[in-house]
Amino acid sequence: MTMITNPTEEVRRVLDAVKAEGRTALTAPEGKLVCEAYGITVPNEGVATSAADAAAIATAMGFPVVLKIVSPEILHKTEAGGVLVGVKNAEDVQKGYDTTIANAKKYNAKANILGVQVQQMLAGGQEVIIGAVTDPVFGKLVAFGLGGVLVEVLKDITFRLSPATRDDALSMLDGIAAAPILKGVRGADPVNRDALAKMIQNVSQLITEHPEIAEMDLNPVFATKDGAIAADVRIVVNFSPAPARFRPKHEDIVRDMNRIMKPKAVAVIGASSEAGKIGNSVMKNLINGGYKGEIYPINPSADEIMGLKAYKSVKDVPADIDVAVFAIPAKFVASAVAECGEKKIPGAVLIPSGFAETGNVEGQKELVAVAQKYGVRLMGPNIYGFYYTWSNLCATFCTAYDFKGHAALSSQSGGIGMAIIGFSRSAKMGVSAIVGLGNKSDIDEDDLLTFFEQDDNTHIIVQHCEDLKDGRAFAEVAKRVSKKKPVVVLKAGRTSLGSKAASSHTGALAGNDKIYDDVLRQSGVIRARSLREMLEFARALPILPTPKGDNIVIITGAGGSGVLLSDAVVDNGLSLMTFPPDLDAAFKKFIPPFGASGNPVDITGGEPPKTYQNTVRFGLEDPRIHSLILGYWHTIVTPPMVFAKLLAEIVEEMRGKGIDKPIVVSLAGDVEVEEASEYLFDHKIPAYPYSTEIPVDVLGAKYKWARGAGLL
Amino acid sequence: MTMITNPTEEVRRVLDAVKAEGRTALTAPEGKLVCEAYGITVPNEGVATSAADAAAIATAMGFPVVLKIVSPEILHKTEAGGVLVGVKNAEDVQKGYDTTIANAKKYNAKANILGVQVQQMLAGGQEVIIGAVTDPVFGKLVAFGLGGVLVEVLKDITFRLSPATRDDALSMLDGIAAAPILKGVRGADPVNRDALAKMIQNVSQLITEHPEIAEMDLNPVFATKDGAIAADVRIVVNFSPAPARFRPKHEDIVRDMNRIMKPKAVAVIGASSEAGKIGNSVMKNLINGGYKGEIYPINPSADEIMGLKAYKSVKDVPADIDVAVFAIPAKFVASAVAECGEKKIPGAVLIPSGFAETGNVEGQKELVAVAQKYGVRLMGPNIYGFYYTWSNLCATFCTAYDFKGHAALSSQSGGIGMAIIGFSRSAKMGVSAIVGLGNKSDIDEDDLLTFFEQDDNTHIIVQHCEDLKDGRAFAEVAKRVSKKKPVVVLKAGRTSLGSKAASSHTGALAGNDKIYDDVLRQSGVIRARSLREMLEFARALPILPTPKGDNIVIITGAGGSGVLLSDAVVDNGLSLMTFPPDLDAAFKKFIPPFGASGNPVDITGGEPPKTYQNTVRFGLEDPRIHSLILGYWHTIVTPPMVFAKLLAEIVEEMRGKGIDKPIVVSLAGDVEVEEASEYLFDHKIPAYPYSTEIPVDVLGAKYKWARGAGLL
Repeated sequence: MTMITNPTEEVRRVLDAVKAEGRTALTAPEGKLVCEAYGITVPNEGVATSAADAAAIATAMGFPVVLKIVSPEILHKTEAGGVLVGVKNAEDVQKGYDTTIANAKKYNAKANILGVQVQQMLAGGQEVIIGAVTDPVFGKLVAFGLGGVLVEVLKDITFRLSPATRDDALSMLDGIAAAPILKGVRGADPVNRDALAKMIQNVSQLITEHPEIAEMDLNPVFATKDGAIAADVRIVVNFSPAPARFRPKHEDIVRDMNRIMKPKAVAVIGASSEAGKIGNSVMKNLINGGYKGEIYPINPSADEIMGLKAYKSVKDVPADIDVAVFAIPAKFVASAVAECGEKKIPGAVLIPSGFAETGNVEGQKELVAVAQKYGVRLMGPNIYGFYYTWSNLCATFCTAYDFKGHAALSSQSGGIGMAIIGFSRSAKMGVSAIVGLGNKSDIDEDDLLTFFEQDDNTHIIVQHCEDLKDGRAFAEVAKRVSKKKPVVVLKAGRTSLGSKAASSHTGALAGNDKIYDDVLRQSGVIRARSLREMLEFARALPILPTPKGDNIVIITGAGGSGVLLSDAVVDNGLSLMTFPPDLDAAFKKFIPPFGASGNPVDITGGEPPKTYQNTVRFGLEDPRIHSLILGYWHTIVTPPMVFAKLLAEIVEEMRGKGIDKPIVVSLAGDVEVEEASEYLFDHKIPAYPYSTEIPVDVLGAKYKWARGAGLL
Repeated sequence: MTMITNPTEEVRRVLDAVKAEGRTALTAPEGKLVCEAYGITVPNEGVATSAADAAAIATAMGFPVVLKIVSPEILHKTEAGGVLVGVKNAEDVQKGYDTTIANAKKYNAKANILGVQVQQMLAGGQEVIIGAVTDPVFGKLVAFGLGGVLVEVLKDITFRLSPATRDDALSMLDGIAAAPILKGVRGADPVNRDALAKMIQNVSQLITEHPEIAEMDLNPVFATKDGAIAADVRIVVNFSPAPARFRPKHEDIVRDMNRIMKPKAVAVIGASSEAGKIGNSVMKNLINGGYKGEIYPINPSADEIMGLKAYKSVKDVPADIDVAVFAIPAKFVASAVAECGEKKIPGAVLIPSGFAETGNVEGQKELVAVAQKYGVRLMGPNIYGFYYTWSNLCATFCTAYDFKGHAALSSQSGGIGMAIIGFSRSAKMGVSAIVGLGNKSDIDEDDLLTFFEQDDNTHIIVQHCEDLKDGRAFAEVAKRVSKKKPVVVLKAGRTSLGSKAASSHTGALAGNDKIYDDVLRQSGVIRARSLREMLEFARALPILPTPKGDNIVIITGAGGSGVLLSDAVVDNGLSLMTFPPDLDAAFKKFIPPFGASGNPVDITGGEPPKTYQNTVRFGLEDPRIHSLILGYWHTIVTPPMVFAKLLAEIVEEMRGKGIDKPIVVSLAGDVEVEEASEYLFDHKIPAYPYSTEIPVDVLGAKYKWARGAGLL
């Protein structure tokens, strides 16, 4: 292998030649050159023009070798007797050289024979695939998987955004189902992880520095304990890639989003006094919601609406406006956005439908052009608007929502937005904001992430989406934000059927779900598996403290709950703490002699409140224990509300002492457990009746986040 | 391959020899004999004593062949130069014979050389494993998987109860993740499914007829398009298997369980007037629950309890008694059971704890012995008792439950039982029975299945269990019952962590979860993945009609719900109907021009009740459509209760016309959707607020059942 002094220049030269010839793929020698330039090991080879030469080349690279005739006229080398594999020593190479030449001449007397290629023969090791793709959503990605047909059938392959760090690359080796193979099974040698990670990183660097490389396959790569060699290289190029999506600067996003989400003055374009009109609902929600900023109704044919002076245009308002909420028909929207631009309003909330979602793609393009011209950020169109509870702001035509809290939710779909509002109200979920994104002509998930990142009222960001307009921008922002606050995403259209519905709904390009899955994980995002799970995470995660370690203990009054809770622990990739003898003895002291030893701590069914109290207190006080999962069982001796109150009391007492560990509770019992669960939630302890899985799923999500954020 | 005239006798002879020699495994030649007796193809082979002989044997079996020296003194044949592989013709076989003999003599001049083994050389094809195990829960099982280390790592193997039918065997070929490999990928030939299925069946027959065979491995089996050959055979025997568990006769179970579950007269042993005592709670529940049969309080120190004459012993009661509910301390239970036996009471409901679950294993054994002596069936001990709503019977110390319906639920754990009661009451779930099984000293899940099978008040049977005392009996009964009524099982202790908790809780042997999974599926059982799912299935499945075909249509007001519902469809192994053009056109007629074509039918958000009405009615009326999934979106135009009422009306109208298709509903909206969901449930339409997954999971379970029962 030859290291090139200036790899970028070397590759540039190759790509220029390919471009000049109008090709879309590199030849094998070009691929080899490119690989060598970036330190990607390929088999050693050389062309010999004499038997002695062949032997010298072979001796230098080591045996065994493969000999192949080199002649432009001989395409089917094997047929011509022009290939010898497994040649084991210098003497045989010399003989083989002569045989190969002789066979070739016999096969085609007119052939122009340039020599014999001597190639290092690869044997043994594990076959893997390292590759690269250009995804329409996420751009450059590196891929890793095992070689072979079984892996193809099982689709056991993993992706990371490029550029990939060394940690990213190493995580790929562990990120496939067949990962144990790489560590050596049945006495096989483990592969050289460093060499594989390095090759992944080299591919990543290559495609990052040369975006014309659209696809790349190193397949197979032979991975052994000593290193990794790419036996075959395929590189596809694209010299006219899609232009990058326009992204405002970070500080501009922060400035504008703060004015939009926390406005001092709101204009309602299309405000109305007529009940049933959207412009009337918006006015009512703003006024009755308790918003304290200025409200300017805009309506060309009214002087006053709901007691407020109305203006014909935003331009007539004699003061600054931070955001304009639109409640006018689609055809009037573009010109009104232009007026907003002239008035230097940074944001337009476009409730109106009738754009891309109904096929009016041109209308939406026009809108975006106008907005970009004036620097107006657009939310929507085709949305319910948004809520920002800490400003008592209901900039929406839906029902008001005023239960302040720390979860910021958004949805691409209005239907899901309504489900968020209903669930939140029903579960008394503390919310900082609920935002509709609809057609996402401009403002999208990463703008919201950027705003909520610096919004002190928001402790968790929860987003429903069907597509990402700019997956790379999202991933970059999410990676940063998720280090500070949990980011939960419900990505709809996961399955091919779902994706079909997604594209008919929004015209969005369906993303490959495996890529979404890997990139979201790489970005520290917790992916919700269902709508209900997304909502439960939004409700519970902000009130659950961050765990400080992996030692989880189940304390249960019902052995049966203990078993199901243990199942859920494993399902969530968690594990129960193994008790040292003193810990086991300490718990046993509190419980009847026939209670089960170890973890779960089974306090048994007939116990008085004191037993719950003692064991939970001990679990909180012992510094080796990091999280508690409680399985309550309704009995006459310890009724639900007695349990709930004593638990809330202990937790409060401990919080007073600076001990604040995650506790989640599963309650098995008659309907009184519902009241008890609500009481516990009110006291910032996630608790669930009739479920052993939701409490553990919630705890699992908090762990997942803490790990991704490097807090564990 | 030689077919043996009497295979059973032949194998018996081999096994007798193994037993006589005190061995636990068969030698290779013995294994070969056994395989040949049962038509399991093994490589052809023969021992030659001359070069000409070797050539003749090889020519008869076909080339290539392997030659191996046969000598008791030469164990390391390869080292001795005594193995030649890939010998291609008669001439080479003759030469090979001589070489092998010469090498062996050179290696060990004193070796007694018996000849040269000529063996058919297997090449190509797909390596698979066919095996058999004896599971402590389920007994004889056959296993199938792909060969190779990757499959071992991915644990891609599947099990079926033996004897396995041809359909069972074929389902195993499709039951592994790597199944597509068998069908031929990348141009490879598909394997011969008949040959593999036949080999599985032959193994199944062998181990069924010879239960001494404890384990068997055919590994690898070479599967090609032409057939399957087991290259290596390993058979492990056990001549002292565990004795079979005692099972009453079917008609005895039915007779006794009917008297126990639907008694005309109940005795309460340990009945009490003192509030707070279990014997008092049971009396109150029986009397206040509205039970119309006779109630006999048994208490040696009372003449009357709650207005009823009390007796010192059941033997003093001057009438027949069908069941005795026990509310006395553990130490008195055995003698009281004996009295029940003398009184010919067929069943004892043992609420008392203090038996195996507290370590008192002997006490429980004694109890069982007494009960078996008298033929008294035992429910429990260590249970809450049971409910049978249609007799207004609350034979339990827990809170009464009286909402009559068609779901029969049972739980091994009291905690889960309480969760069942609470959820049922909260969700107004119609229940026929709730039964606690506790320690399962006698009556277990298959006794309940046998009773509920013939109980007309029960339409679905839902069971929580941590283990099965007799998995084979359960599987056999479940296979029969599930053809008539859905059987749902929540098997706790799925994971190794869960299993650990299970064994500390009940002393039950943890079952291998993969085996449970496969056998439950083979038995037509729907496995619930979580407690909440089990409860939701119990609530919804009895009111959901059985689908008559696979054509599922989503009708939604919210495109976003449509996407998530589509995801859920795929997650449940279902698929959306592809519309023929006329169907698409018919739906389009009812919806705005910008609504999405095809399936999901997106009627869009702002539509009046009429649009839901038209599309749902059409979906019900068109005979090509078999099931509907509705995604409702809360709007001012069609509020939740308006939607709920119109839907209930259409469904009722259609039911009047004999059209009764499964419909499930997801409601996205503000809290009013909760009332609407309840209203729909009351009208026998499963409906769920804030969830797109539960409705489809429920529909999926009904489909799974219908398929398993052969109704689809």
